[in-house]
Amino acid sequence: MRDTGSRLSIREYLQLIGVRDLPPLTSPFDPGYDPVTVESHLEQSAHLMASLKISMACWQIANEAATRRKIAAARSHGVPAVTGGGPFEVAVAQGQLEAYLDLCANLGITRIECGEGFTELALKPREVVKLAHERGLVVQYEMGKKHEGPFTEDSLEEAVARGHSWLDAGAVQLVVEARESAKGVGTFGDDGSLNAAYADRFAEEFGLDIAMFEAPNKPSQFAFLEHFGQRVHLCNVRLEELLRVEIFRRGLHSDAFALPNLRPALPGVEIGR
Amino acid sequence: MRDTGSRLSIREYLQLIGVRDLPPLTSPFDPGYDPVTVESHLEQSAHLMASLKISMACWQIANEAATRRKIAAARSHGVPAVTGGGPFEVAVAQGQLEAYLDLCANLGITRIECGEGFTELALKPREVVKLAHERGLVVQYEMGKKHEGPFTEDSLEEAVARGHSWLDAGAVQLVVEARESAKGVGTFGDDGSLNAAYADRFAEEFGLDIAMFEAPNKPSQFAFLEHFGQRVHLCNVRLEELLRVEIFRRGLHSDAFALPNLRPALPGVEIGR
Amino acid sequence: MRDTGSRLSIREYLQLIGVRDLPPLTSPFDPGYDPVTVESHLEQSAHLMASLKISMACWQIANEAATRRKIAAARSHGVPAVTGGGPFEVAVAQGQLEAYLDLCANLGITRIECGEGFTELALKPREVVKLAHERGLVVQYEMGKKHEGPFTEDSLEEAVARGHSWLDAGAVQLVVEARESAKGVGTFGDDGSLNAAYADRFAEEFGLDIAMFEAPNKPSQFAFLEHFGQRVHLCNVRLEELLRVEIFRRGLHSDAFALPNLRPALPGVEIGR
Repeated sequence: MRDTGSRLSIREYLQLIGVRDLPPLTSPFDPGYDPVTVESHLEQSAHLMASLKISMACWQIANEAATRRKIAAARSHGVPAVTGGGPFEVAVAQGQLEAYLDLCANLGITRIECGEGFTELALKPREVVKLAHERGLVVQYEMGKKHEGPFTEDSLEEAVARGHSWLDAGAVQLVVEARESAKGVGTFGDDGSLNAAYADRFAEEFGLDIAMFEAPNKPSQFAFLEHFGQRVHLCNVRLEELLRVEIFRRGLHSDAFALPNLRPALPGVEIGR
Repeated sequence: MRDTGSRLSIREYLQLIGVRDLPPLTSPFDPGYDPVTVESHLEQSAHLMASLKISMACWQIANEAATRRKIAAARSHGVPAVTGGGPFEVAVAQGQLEAYLDLCANLGITRIECGEGFTELALKPREVVKLAHERGLVVQYEMGKKHEGPFTEDSLEEAVARGHSWLDAGAVQLVVEARESAKGVGTFGDDGSLNAAYADRFAEEFGLDIAMFEAPNKPSQFAFLEHFGQRVHLCNVRLEELLRVEIFRRGLHSDAFALPNLRPALPGVEIGR
Repeated sequence: MRDTGSRLSIREYLQLIGVRDLPPLTSPFDPGYDPVTVESHLEQSAHLMASLKISMACWQIANEAATRRKIAAARSHGVPAVTGGGPFEVAVAQGQLEAYLDLCANLGITRIECGEGFTELALKPREVVKLAHERGLVVQYEMGKKHEGPFTEDSLEEAVARGHSWLDAGAVQLVVEARESAKGVGTFGDDGSLNAAYADRFAEEFGLDIAMFEAPNKPSQFAFLEHFGQRVHLCNVRLEELLRVEIFRRGLHSDAFALPNLRPALPGVEIGR
């Protein structure tokens, strides 16, 4: 048997075949997995995670030790732990925003998501962000409604306006709603097709560093990457789908290898992208 | 940064926002996960599990040590481990009921499910329950047929009658069949819609402490909770969906927060439910 | 309480009810799970795995330590670790086949899959197999195209011809493509129905020890087992579905118990199969 001699690391191999290094650009979410699984995903993929959403209200009814364990695991890998918009909206509706923020800070959460997906918010963005900052919590804001169907021209402009008011108030990123289905919500029509013009509106208004897109399933993940290319920031990707998203992003998936904006460069050939 | 001072536990926070404590009301199932994942789900959610079904015949062909490990984990968290109706039916059909019961008892199973979903049972309920009790096994009975489509008026009444005969014989709970699909079976039409009148028939006849409903996917889980409210006992929920079911049950899911029978009370306001 | 006396193992119980021992006949795949979950599945089910596919290119962008941990776990259970056809095709297209093979060998991979699912291969099978063998790597070849729809009479014959040329060159097994969907690809029509005549063509040409069938979801898994019976070799089964496939194979699933070619023999009765 041949002595292979060269002891390439996988990373060196990827460079050989023209795959570029990318910063973490996906924010996966934990839809209620067990803590050991979450921890082991972090070991495997922390370098690909821009943040980790401890999702929905699941963390509020799990054993508290299990919730703390997940958050601590994220922190120990340097991945910001984010709570979802739902618990924020419920806290506000029940008149307990400050208690909610105290709880998040105490649990070790880095960032909270604010939104008005299924409630109306009477508070001003600036008030909310101030209360969060007092507790060391970073803020992101989710644009869109959960129960009103896809964006219309009007609701799109309203969402954009709200996005600006939250950025002005100190929020650091904006999320475009797609729920768990990516169908009949946000930038997705009732058949799940991406309304590229609507998605572009957010990208042009805020840029791809500020605007993030919820991509909860394979068709929405692939659609955003095909449309925007490697640099789009995706969120609400189920943990077990993260690696598939990332190989698609790098053109290593069989459906992405043919796409000019994702395909790895031919080694030795420099392409303008 | 503000010293948050108050060190609320998550449970105290839930009380603040009006979420009631509930006993465990869901019986999730293990569809063939690995033992470490099952153990970690128990750490996270044992307090939400009325029992844990070690599902289908998967435990019979797994490495025996893995099966024993799952059952022992359930026991150590005080969660009764239940075997499904399928292995019972096969055991009877192959003439090995007593060997099956011996095996279950020896493995540490707490409860067995009996049924006639895809076979006919010649034995009387009383005979079966007696054999189970001799081995310290509790009995539940599954009502419904796997391959005959949704209930009809006739098959519904026959299922109710069988339920009574098993309760009379010493079974402690009854399960309403929905398979893995909740489509074209039991109380679900071919389009997956819940036949509420049929579901009510079981609830009225047996009460919500005795009658449990298989709810194998999100639409069936949400339909039962919307229809019956917080107290309905759901089973055959995949382990990774348990937390989502329980936040819906408590009105913490965005789709449940608007529902009067699930929404948390406004703090300080007492509502009659 | 009765002293059950007999301490049957599960395996002895299966013999009692007429379930035969079978060699490992399924090659599951890891679609991007975490390493702890993969390890624990191996503990539970290594005896059922003909090989384990470390899937797609996921292993190339995971933390290298996580990838190595999965491969080492497979090896320690005596399960050959296989890489998928996608990374092979990309390596060839990028002009780095030898580096790819070096990398696989260095990571502890036992077997590689070669294919032309989304690229054209200019190299001769014999050249590829020689390079693999020099590094101690076994070769299997995947027949079929990912993006050209189901087989036609012509593309079927071409796939068969390529299969022969790879076997002649030293490949040990052949895989029939079905992608992740088993719809509109390989032996599956656009509605997901199995074209039994096409499947038979592979079985008759190569035999069920050489030809393996990708069965990525429940309908395709059950369709192949119903059609071919217990001895068909299935691959690309998600790890968490492996046990369900294997109870179906043994007639222990409620949908398989009625099928003459899968149903366990009645104890004491010898059936010709």
